[in-house]
Amino acid sequence: MGAYEIEIERTSSPKEKPQGEALGFGRFFTDHMFLMDYDAGEGWHHPRIVPYGPIALDPAAKAFHYAQTAFEGLKAYRTDEGRILLFRPRSNLARLNRSNERLSIPPIDEELALRALKELVRLDRDWVPSEPGTSLYIRPFIIATEPALGVSPSRQYRFVVILSPVGAYYAQGIRPVSIHVEPDYVRAVRGGLGAAKTGGNYASGLRAQEGAAEAGHAQVLWLDGVHRRYIEEVGSMNVFFRIGDAAVTPALGGSILAGVTRDSAIRLLRSWDVPVEERAISIDEIVEAHESGGLKEAFGTGTAAVVSPIGELHWRGERRVVGGGETGELCRRIYGSLTAIQYGRAPDPFGWTEPLDGQP
Amino acid sequence: MGAYEIEIERTSSPKEKPQGEALGFGRFFTDHMFLMDYDAGEGWHHPRIVPYGPIALDPAAKAFHYAQTAFEGLKAYRTDEGRILLFRPRSNLARLNRSNERLSIPPIDEELALRALKELVRLDRDWVPSEPGTSLYIRPFIIATEPALGVSPSRQYRFVVILSPVGAYYAQGIRPVSIHVEPDYVRAVRGGLGAAKTGGNYASGLRAQEGAAEAGHAQVLWLDGVHRRYIEEVGSMNVFFRIGDAAVTPALGGSILAGVTRDSAIRLLRSWDVPVEERAISIDEIVEAHESGGLKEAFGTGTAAVVSPIGELHWRGERRVVGGGETGELCRRIYGSLTAIQYGRAPDPFGWTEPLDGQP
Ligand SMILES: Cc1ncc(COP(=O)(O)O)c(C=O)c1O
Ligand SMILES: Cc1ncc(COP(=O)(O)O)c(C=O)c1O
Repeated sequence: MGAYEIEIERTSSPKEKPQGEALGFGRFFTDHMFLMDYDAGEGWHHPRIVPYGPIALDPAAKAFHYAQTAFEGLKAYRTDEGRILLFRPRSNLARLNRSNERLSIPPIDEELALRALKELVRLDRDWVPSEPGTSLYIRPFIIATEPALGVSPSRQYRFVVILSPVGAYYAQGIRPVSIHVEPDYVRAVRGGLGAAKTGGNYASGLRAQEGAAEAGHAQVLWLDGVHRRYIEEVGSMNVFFRIGDAAVTPALGGSILAGVTRDSAIRLLRSWDVPVEERAISIDEIVEAHESGGLKEAFGTGTAAVVSPIGELHWRGERRVVGGGETGELCRRIYGSLTAIQYGRAPDPFGWTEPLDGQP
Repeated sequence: MGAYEIEIERTSSPKEKPQGEALGFGRFFTDHMFLMDYDAGEGWHHPRIVPYGPIALDPAAKAFHYAQTAFEGLKAYRTDEGRILLFRPRSNLARLNRSNERLSIPPIDEELALRALKELVRLDRDWVPSEPGTSLYIRPFIIATEPALGVSPSRQYRFVVILSPVGAYYAQGIRPVSIHVEPDYVRAVRGGLGAAKTGGNYASGLRAQEGAAEAGHAQVLWLDGVHRRYIEEVGSMNVFFRIGDAAVTPALGGSILAGVTRDSAIRLLRSWDVPVEERAISIDEIVEAHESGGLKEAFGTGTAAVVSPIGELHWRGERRVVGGGETGELCRRIYGSLTAIQYGRAPDPFGWTEPLDGQP
């Protein structure tokens, strides 16, 4: 068990904590980070918590050249009583190992990683903000560190966990956004990396996202790379439509991420007896549903925003207002229920929250 | 011009140089590296040569998370008289800027970058090996360094150039290899990153490459992600077939890299009055040409190997021997002509080689 003991080196110069309104997303980081190394032959070893600081890598490290990386994103929430809850951390760690598998990265021990997350959050618990809607974003990631330019899986890796206090996504209340449906750029294709949480999928989206932002849209709605017709994801979120009485969302076909929020939303909807359909949805079907009046709602789901209602879809030069440009009923209900569970203000019938052990 | 002056800090502890046979590819690095930084507002600045050593980045640097990176690969060759020639460096730097454009990375000044390459190679010129077939591999690359987790283009970058003496690819003479035609995994798709030299394209290939290697094949032949029929690339090389009298290679459709060696081979072939067809080639066409006896040769082209003859293609459980498993005539002729130009042993009618200025 010696190899699994997490060494802790505390910082001698704690940073000043930023204030609630200024937090934004992923711009401030806490006092400590978790590290663990992998070497071929030795496996994962030397789990440790150290002061937050630069990572020094050989310039030939494979992560810089061949993007052999995987990452996760989850959150810790502070309850009204000051307890701290992680939301579905086991789901994220299981997904990290699925990403690892796709990227030829050796699997991590999920139990050890969960212990590391908890230990790190506990040490930096004063960084978990308490203003309404704020949380602590947890970013575990793995990078290939072997200094070798041959294109092959690395023989060395580093696993890192960093923490970032993040502001309320909806400080001014939930606001539906305008979405650009992308006709030319493709995020990922079946057979590729789309189902993994790895850098390449995000690099491929930057250009279209920039173009959409310049045209005044908040996000890109991606279509599939084969037919350029089937809906995939919206920005870094999964996407749902309410068509008639059903909630419809793209099936997990290998090119999109299996979002934890997507899964949570599906389970909530089913518990409310809302019919959920996981299937292929073409943009033409959405256009038809819009024209016939059947398209009642559209929204994204993801850890950062929980839900993000879509007020307008822009496709082939046409602007289509969804649900009168207002936040729809299902979207609002999912948001209310999920955040109530996350902040410990409602019962947790699914066992999704994970308290830090031994918290006061 | 002050901003364009390249500062030089020499190492005080030069490393031992590895010997010829042990070189391999991309495992040893020279004494110095080139660095330049970018900050939004300030642009690219502070070009400098420093001792080769670790790069320290904030763990939140975007390159680690979102693979916003681009790179190049080219070579310097030592002639029999001891002069050093770069091969088509301007083509590589132009391609780097095309990759930058796709990745939303600010363009670099190609003239300055060329000067940097030359200055760096001149400083480490003793590292350019002289054994037959060896060379100095030059790896320029750009990484996003802004420490921020929002998915958007970085506001800070670092441009790095490292140098690696590499061994003879064909120490035992040119040897045709066995190739696995990949039915399931996809490297890149039109609309994606395939035409850019960026990490994500290499990450996406690791898994299939591993599988192919386990089955005893040297490389993967990629098919397109839309129809799963059209030939794209082979490993990290462009691919050519000789069908009848013509050399046929996939057209640059947006999902494959515009190889400098590919372009050089096409120009040589045309100068020899060999008909060259850049067009879509389906795997079915290759199978038919093989069965009818029309498929005379197959080979890859790339900076690392120059050419790599394909001796067998494995597709859907069938092994197809190409050209009797021997290196074909066109392949051999391209290899001979290109290497003669690269090592300065033949005239350079295309103006492809670039000597270091002021070399002795
Ligand atoms: C591409 C992509 N799709 C969907 C999601 C939503 O996943 P989750 O609900 O697990 O945050 C994310 C992550 O936030 C993502 O990056
Ligand atoms: C994916 C890919 N295709 C093709 C090539 C060949 O390009 P070049 O001839 O410029 O080396 C490379 C680079 O070596 C590559 O990485």
